[in-house]
Amino acid sequence: MTLSARPLRLSTTEGGFDAALAARLHWSADTDAGIEKVVADIIADVRSRGDAAVLEYTNRFDRLAATSLRELELGQAEMKAAFEGLPARQREALENAARRVRSYHEAQKKASGESWSYRDADGTLLGQKVTPVDRVGIYVPGGKAAYPSSVLMNAIPAQVAGVAEIIMVVPHPGAQNALLLAAAWLAGATRAFTIGGAQAVAALAYGTETVPRVDKVTGPGNAYVASAKRRVFGQVGIDMIAGPSEILVLADGTTPADWVAMDLFSQAEHDELAQSILLCPDAAYIDEVQRAIDRMLPEMPRAGIIATSLTNRGALIRTRSMEEACEISNRVAPEHLEIASADPHRWEPLLRHAGAIFLGAYTSESLGDYCAGPNHVLPTSTTARFSSPLGVYDFQKRSSLIEVSQAGAQVLGVIAAELAYGEGLQAHARAAELRLKR
Amino acid sequence: MTLSARPLRLSTTEGGFDAALAARLHWSADTDAGIEKVVADIIADVRSRGDAAVLEYTNRFDRLAATSLRELELGQAEMKAAFEGLPARQREALENAARRVRSYHEAQKKASGESWSYRDADGTLLGQKVTPVDRVGIYVPGGKAAYPSSVLMNAIPAQVAGVAEIIMVVPHPGAQNALLLAAAWLAGATRAFTIGGAQAVAALAYGTETVPRVDKVTGPGNAYVASAKRRVFGQVGIDMIAGPSEILVLADGTTPADWVAMDLFSQAEHDELAQSILLCPDAAYIDEVQRAIDRMLPEMPRAGIIATSLTNRGALIRTRSMEEACEISNRVAPEHLEIASADPHRWEPLLRHAGAIFLGAYTSESLGDYCAGPNHVLPTSTTARFSSPLGVYDFQKRSSLIEVSQAGAQVLGVIAAELAYGEGLQAHARAAELRLKR
Repeated sequence: MTLSARPLRLSTTEGGFDAALAARLHWSADTDAGIEKVVADIIADVRSRGDAAVLEYTNRFDRLAATSLRELELGQAEMKAAFEGLPARQREALENAARRVRSYHEAQKKASGESWSYRDADGTLLGQKVTPVDRVGIYVPGGKAAYPSSVLMNAIPAQVAGVAEIIMVVPHPGAQNALLLAAAWLAGATRAFTIGGAQAVAALAYGTETVPRVDKVTGPGNAYVASAKRRVFGQVGIDMIAGPSEILVLADGTTPADWVAMDLFSQAEHDELAQSILLCPDAAYIDEVQRAIDRMLPEMPRAGIIATSLTNRGALIRTRSMEEACEISNRVAPEHLEIASADPHRWEPLLRHAGAIFLGAYTSESLGDYCAGPNHVLPTSTTARFSSPLGVYDFQKRSSLIEVSQAGAQVLGVIAAELAYGEGLQAHARAAELRLKR
Repeated sequence: MTLSARPLRLSTTEGGFDAALAARLHWSADTDAGIEKVVADIIADVRSRGDAAVLEYTNRFDRLAATSLRELELGQAEMKAAFEGLPARQREALENAARRVRSYHEAQKKASGESWSYRDADGTLLGQKVTPVDRVGIYVPGGKAAYPSSVLMNAIPAQVAGVAEIIMVVPHPGAQNALLLAAAWLAGATRAFTIGGAQAVAALAYGTETVPRVDKVTGPGNAYVASAKRRVFGQVGIDMIAGPSEILVLADGTTPADWVAMDLFSQAEHDELAQSILLCPDAAYIDEVQRAIDRMLPEMPRAGIIATSLTNRGALIRTRSMEEACEISNRVAPEHLEIASADPHRWEPLLRHAGAIFLGAYTSESLGDYCAGPNHVLPTSTTARFSSPLGVYDFQKRSSLIEVSQAGAQVLGVIAAELAYGEGLQAHARAAELRLKR
C-alpha cells in the first residue's frame, strides 16, 4: 500500500485564492431531510412510549438483546471496578488529567461564574445570581471509537458548576471500554446508561420510566444525535452542534517541521472529514513540512484516514506575512489554532476567532486535548465566530436581581410610566405609578 | 361590556394539585409542521435569490410596494431625526432608561466578561480570552405592537460587549414608530432595515446583496421567526426561542393587594397567552387580590386581553407556607419572579430558577421592564432551568489560551501520550512525544 497525503498548496498572491480557500473550507452543516424525518419519528415515539421505545431502538441499532432498560444501566460499582482495574500508568494519567481539568475549570468559575451585586446611589440593588443547572445529560459517543477524555471534559465542568445529577449516556460498544467507565467514575457521573443516538437524546430531554428528564444535554455525536439535539432545543438546553474537527497552524518557520506535520496528522487521524491547515510566509518551510508528512505517514497506524483527510480537506498556504496569516485565520475561525512561532504573544492579540489558541512550539494541540486543563469540546465549522469552548458557564444559569427602594421607585416609576404609555402598555405604567407617593 | 377576570383558584392541600398546576402551566412549544415547511422554503429562497426574495416576501407579507431592498433601509439621519423630534419628557425617559441599562451591563461585563489567565507551577500559561462577536443582527418585533424598550435591551449589551456592527431589522409598521427609531439611534444601531419574519432572519444569517451576513441573531418574534432562528442555528448563533411572557408573584400578604393585582395585569396585558400566577399562604389576601382585580379591570384599556389571559392561563394558589411557595416557584421556573414580601432576602436564597427576581413591594416588574438596568429579554416557558437573561455574554465569545513551556511539555507529554494510546489516537501521542527530551 503506497499512501500519499497531499494537502492543497495555495498562495495568497495567486489570483482566485479567496475562492479556492472558500471551496476548501466548505463543509455543509445542512440537515438531511431523511435524517430529520427519522429523528422526528424516534423522538415522538420515545415521548409517547418511553422505556419501551428506547429499548426497541437500542436493540435494533446497537444490535443488542436487552429485555429492559434497567439492564442497560451501568452501576457505580461497575464504573469503580473499571477504574481500579486499570493498569497503574493509565490510572495515574487519567487522575492527573482529571486534576488539571478540574483546576482549570475552578479558575474559570472564579473568574466568570460567581454571583455579583451592587447598590446604586438611590439604594437600588442590582445584580445577578449564578446557580447550577439541576440535572444534565452527557452524551458520549461510543459507536466508532471511545473517547474517555470526552467524559472528563463534559462531566468535570458540570461537577465544578455544582450540578447535582450528571446522567451519562454512551452507546454500545463504548460502554464496554474500561478507560471510559473509569473516567465516568472519576468525573462523578451520577448514573449511566448504555444507550445512544436520537433515542438517548429524546430519553434525556423528555424522561422515561427509567431515564430521568434532564435540563440540558451536552456532548458531540453523529448526524442523528446532532439533529435530535437541534430538535429538543428549547425543551432542554444544548451546548452546540459539532461538525468535523479542525486545526489551523500559523507557522513562522521556527518550529521543527516534523512537530508541525505530526500536529496536522493528529487532527487528520480523527476522521476523513477533519481539516488541517498550515499558514506560513516561508515557502521553503512549507516544503519541509510536506517532506515530513511524506516521511512520517507510512509509520502511522491510521495512515489511510490521515492521507484521505489531508488530501481532500487539508491545505498548506503560503501567505505574504504572518499578519496576513492572522487575518486568514480570523476568516477560518478554527476550532484549534496553533501559533508555531518563536514569538507567539506577538500574534495572539491579532487573533479574534478560535476555540482554543495554543501558543509556541511546545504547545501541541494533543496536550490540550488531554490534560493541559482547558476544555477540548470546542466550536467547529467557523462557529467560533459566535460560540465558546464548553465550560462551567454551560452548566450554570443566571437570574437578574432587582430591589428598588421606596426612594428609587419615585425616580424609576416616572421613567417607566412614560415609556410604558409610549408603548401602549397601560397596566405597566399604572403598576409603576401605584408605587409613587401622592 | 362586562368583563371578568377569574384566575384559577388552587390550593396545595387539595388532592390533584400537582396535575392541576401542570395543566395550567402547559404550553406547547412544539413546532407546527406547516410553519416549518413555509420557513424552510423561505430560507432556501433567500439563500439562492438574495435581495429579490427578501423583497418579494416583504411586499407580500407586510403589504408594501417597495421596488428594491435599498428602499427599505432606514438611514441614520432618519433615526436621529426621530430621536430629536420626540417630546422632551419621552426623550428624557428614553435617555435615562438607556443610561441605566448601559451602566448595569457595564457592571456585568466587568463581573463576568473579561479575559483572564494564570501560570501554574511548571510555567504553563492557562486562560481564556474574551472577544466581542464581530457583527450581530437584532430582530425587533413590529407587526402587532412596537417595543422601543426591546431595542435598548438588545442593542445596548451588544454595544457594551464591543460589537462593531449592529444590524437591526423591524417589520412594517414598527419601523414607522418614532420612539422605536429613536431608541435605535440612541442604542447605536449601525444599520436598520424594514424587514421581518423568516425572510429577515434568513437575510441576516446568510447575507444578501444589501443585508450584511451577521454572526449572531437575537431578539424575539412570532412563530415564523422562532422557527427560522431554530433552523439557522449553527450557521449563526441565536439567543433563545421565546414563548409567551410570564410572571409569578410570591406574596406574604404585606404588599397592598392592588399593587399585586396590577402587576398581574401588567403581564396579562401583553397577550392572551401570557401567564400570571400568585402564590400565597394567606387565603384572605388572595381574596383581596381577586377583589382588586374585579375593581380595577374595567379601568384598563387592554381589559379584554387581561381578562382572557387571567381567566384562561392565570392562577391564584394558596400554599401551606412561603417555603412551599418557593418550591413551587422552582418548579415553574418563571420568567419574572416577584417576591412581594416584607422580608424578600429571606426567600431569595430558596429560589433557584427564574429569569429575573424582583425583591420587595416597591420593585414592580414594570420598573425592570423599562429602566432598572437589567435586561428584559428573559427565558420563558421553564427554560430558566438552563438559560439566562440576554446579556453582554451573549455578544461575546471565549477562546482558551494554552502555552506550555519546555519543562511543562515533559510532564504533560507523558500523560497525554498514555491517554492518546488508550484511545487509539497514535498521532496525538506522537505529537506529544516529539516534544519530550531524549
